Amino acid sequence: MSDSFLSEIELYYSDAIEGTKTIVLSREESHHLTKVMRHNTGDEIYVTDGKGNIYRTVIFDISKREVKTEIKQIYSYPDKFKNITFCLPRLKNAERFEAALEKSIELGITNFIVFESKRTVARGEKLNRWNKIALAAMKQSLRSWKPVVGYAENLHEISFNGEIIIFEQKGNDTLTEYLNNNYDSNKNYFFIFGPEGGFESSEIEAFENASLLKLTENRLRSETAVIAAAALLATLIR
Amino acid sequence: MSDSFLSEIELYYSDAIEGTKTIVLSREESHHLTKVMRHNTGDEIYVTDGKGNIYRTVIFDISKREVKTEIKQIYSYPDKFKNITFCLPRLKNAERFEAALEKSIELGITNFIVFESKRTVARGEKLNRWNKIALAAMKQSLRSWKPVVGYAENLHEISFNGEIIIFEQKGNDTLTEYLNNNYDSNKNYFFIFGPEGGFESSEIEAFENASLLKLTENRLRSETAVIAAAALLATLIR
Repeated sequence: MSDSFLSEIELYYSDAIEGTKTIVLSREESHHLTKVMRHNTGDEIYVTDGKGNIYRTVIFDISKREVKTEIKQIYSYPDKFKNITFCLPRLKNAERFEAALEKSIELGITNFIVFESKRTVARGEKLNRWNKIALAAMKQSLRSWKPVVGYAENLHEISFNGEIIIFEQKGNDTLTEYLNNNYDSNKNYFFIFGPEGGFESSEIEAFENASLLKLTENRLRSETAVIAAAALLATLIR
Repeated sequence: MSDSFLSEIELYYSDAIEGTKTIVLSREESHHLTKVMRHNTGDEIYVTDGKGNIYRTVIFDISKREVKTEIKQIYSYPDKFKNITFCLPRLKNAERFEAALEKSIELGITNFIVFESKRTVARGEKLNRWNKIALAAMKQSLRSWKPVVGYAENLHEISFNGEIIIFEQKGNDTLTEYLNNNYDSNKNYFFIFGPEGGFESSEIEAFENASLLKLTENRLRSETAVIAAAALLATLIR
């Protein structure tokens, strides 16, 4: 499937792929498909399973509760960033936080852990809402890997089995330099972004082997740093 | 002034630099300074003139209408992107449009033209609001060049005296390749971003010599493309 072709379609999601032939769409997806988009039996639609596959299908059954489609063709894609986890601070401003999540998914990031830090004002998880935003961003950007969003009450709860990168205005190297010189797609990477007002030193001093990196010479808002890092990864890593 | 130092300050703006010694702050800035931040005579504050200079100053006079400060030191910065203009489509969703503007300013872009396209739903200019957002983003990111935001009813009203780059999902090269191979800081560049739903072909077919570029293989929302392009410029151009 060429990219120019893919750019025109609308993408649905289903985790109910039955055998090798049939996909069942959820009530919510079915409603959108039939009531909003006014599709009928015989129409061609595209569905992803969130596991790297996009199916070209044809609708063969519409009922009140679900739509069934028949698989005609399968396109499979690798998850380029399966080894990368973005650790995002909860931000005071929900809109800014959600923009960071949405845009980094559009740019290809698939693994997230939301954490609370000492200077975080907003507290508690909203995993349902975050995963809904994540799924919508996946479909909007025609991606086929369902993002995974986790939650940690603080950074030290997370088990970091890989390289740790902390973004700090006082970092020495830039992310661009780091990616050009050190990036190894066989390693896991955890990208930790600071909250409004930055980290307290007690929060990050335990991470002795972490790389402190900056994105630009100028101060960036938290969510701008997240989106900028995703944009750099999306374009600098093949 | 080292960057680690700069990252801690709060920045004010004034266009009233009197002679070489005194800065007068506007009523609005003075109010914020004295009522919100509770500064007093003798306090050190930083002020930019929006023309590339940041002044370290000391407050010496506070009245109801204005605050006067004395210049102690001047730091000057070049405008790295004075040759680059971002042409942004008005978007249906004001929040998304304003995020694109704010974040690309944080990342260093200083010249903007907002245009209406055939598929634009929102119409008319909000230059006052946009310039207010621009000024706030400049101060937030501790930059010293006041962004300029203009407006055009359509793309053909703009006089493009330089290279034209149009972002299109169907573009051949990526922006990264283009910047690495072609960028010349002595030339002017106009970056044209598409609206929701893309351009109608009649809108861009007149630009015969334009370069059609893409940012990533996947479809991006308009505002995500703007922020991603700014992030790439900020980090790939020295």
